[in-house]
Amino acid sequence: MAAPLTGVVPVVPTIFHDDETVDLGGTALVVDYLMDAGADGLCLLANYSEQFSLTDGERDALARALLERVAGRLPVIVTTSHYSARVAATRSRAAQDMGAAMVMVMPPFFGATLTVPGPAVIEYFKQVADAIDIPVMVQDAPLSPTPLPVSLLVDLVNQVPQVHAKIEVPQAADKLHALASALGDSLPGPFDGEESVTLIPDLDAGARGTMPSSMVPAELGQIVAIWPVTGPAR
Amino acid sequence: MAAPLTGVVPVVPTIFHDDETVDLGGTALVVDYLMDAGADGLCLLANYSEQFSLTDGERDALARALLERVAGRLPVIVTTSHYSARVAATRSRAAQDMGAAMVMVMPPFFGATLTVPGPAVIEYFKQVADAIDIPVMVQDAPLSPTPLPVSLLVDLVNQVPQVHAKIEVPQAADKLHALASALGDSLPGPFDGEESVTLIPDLDAGARGTMPSSMVPAELGQIVAIWPVTGPAR
Repeated sequence: MAAPLTGVVPVVPTIFHDDETVDLGGTALVVDYLMDAGADGLCLLANYSEQFSLTDGERDALARALLERVAGRLPVIVTTSHYSARVAATRSRAAQDMGAAMVMVMPPFFGATLTVPGPAVIEYFKQVADAIDIPVMVQDAPLSPTPLPVSLLVDLVNQVPQVHAKIEVPQAADKLHALASALGDSLPGPFDGEESVTLIPDLDAGARGTMPSSMVPAELGQIVAIWPVTGPAR
Repeated sequence: MAAPLTGVVPVVPTIFHDDETVDLGGTALVVDYLMDAGADGLCLLANYSEQFSLTDGERDALARALLERVAGRLPVIVTTSHYSARVAATRSRAAQDMGAAMVMVMPPFFGATLTVPGPAVIEYFKQVADAIDIPVMVQDAPLSPTPLPVSLLVDLVNQVPQVHAKIEVPQAADKLHALASALGDSLPGPFDGEESVTLIPDLDAGARGTMPSSMVPAELGQIVAIWPVTGPAR
């Protein structure tokens, strides 16, 4: 991508058959709908895609089929999160080779209690970034018990220039404002998420894009497009 | 297994090479050590095995290689947890076909916040149990944010007779005592876990086995073997 990704980048839900197997054709129809709605990009295999319900083989098949369906018409972000930096890096390289414009990765965690300290989080994202040439969207979401305080995100962006960020924790606008103030243009985007429920304050705080589900992408895209860029000086 | 599994059933750690790939040969040596130490059974791919650091293919290769190494000399429990009941059932069937004597499964959850209500937990374990003929050890561990209160575990055992249980949450002895009192012999075992740090009170409360890591299996096995059966009437 020449210019940083901005605008509305919906998450593509995975469609399942009644027996809970993946409906690749049905999922491709959702991609068609989101492109018709004017999405600026698409995100695959995120939590709204129920990525935690899929086998490794199904993740791979979905990413491949949906990237083929998009056929380069829009930038596509593929979520490649895994507890192991080795596995996340391998998944990220495979996504790039399939045509992804960016990968999205949560910090490493498992369950409610297994967390990773800040320096290891930075090493994790270095290992992922070193495996690819495309950007890495760090996903800061309430599902992860591994915390990403502003100070850690600032260190991460300074040490791993490929990093972009999606902030969807409580008080997202405060965090976006702090990041935009500290990092300016060295943090491209940033995005909010969490159904865009705090979109207006997030845009005012410096967000340049939003990653909602697939419900009202056209309307959300129009808001991002017309909203004046009024965040911290960039 | 003719008789219910009791005693010490250590979790086999996964051995990794320096580049973080799986060392199958090294892991097989740990199996040899645990059998030499007199373990009553072995558990594969649990959280102490760092199962969250593995790909699906690596899980499969480890289970296959280690079951071949044991060669039927001991009962082997294979952990087959996955958020999706469909995937957990498929993994469990594959484990049975490879020679597992039991599978171990956590309730479905993802991250710190995505939990599943009680009736869906029962449906989940029904779907897993229906796919296999061997028992299912329900793992009640602090890593899971999906709660398993005593009342739910009692309903689960009553509705899914294949269920065994490993209790390793805080106040494990209280929970084991409540389960043993309510269920008696219809809950075979039960086991504690969490490094056997509360083994004595857990045995007094009705535990009949312990699932520690691989550090002192011989010593823990001797304690379980000599401890008088003093729990609630069974």
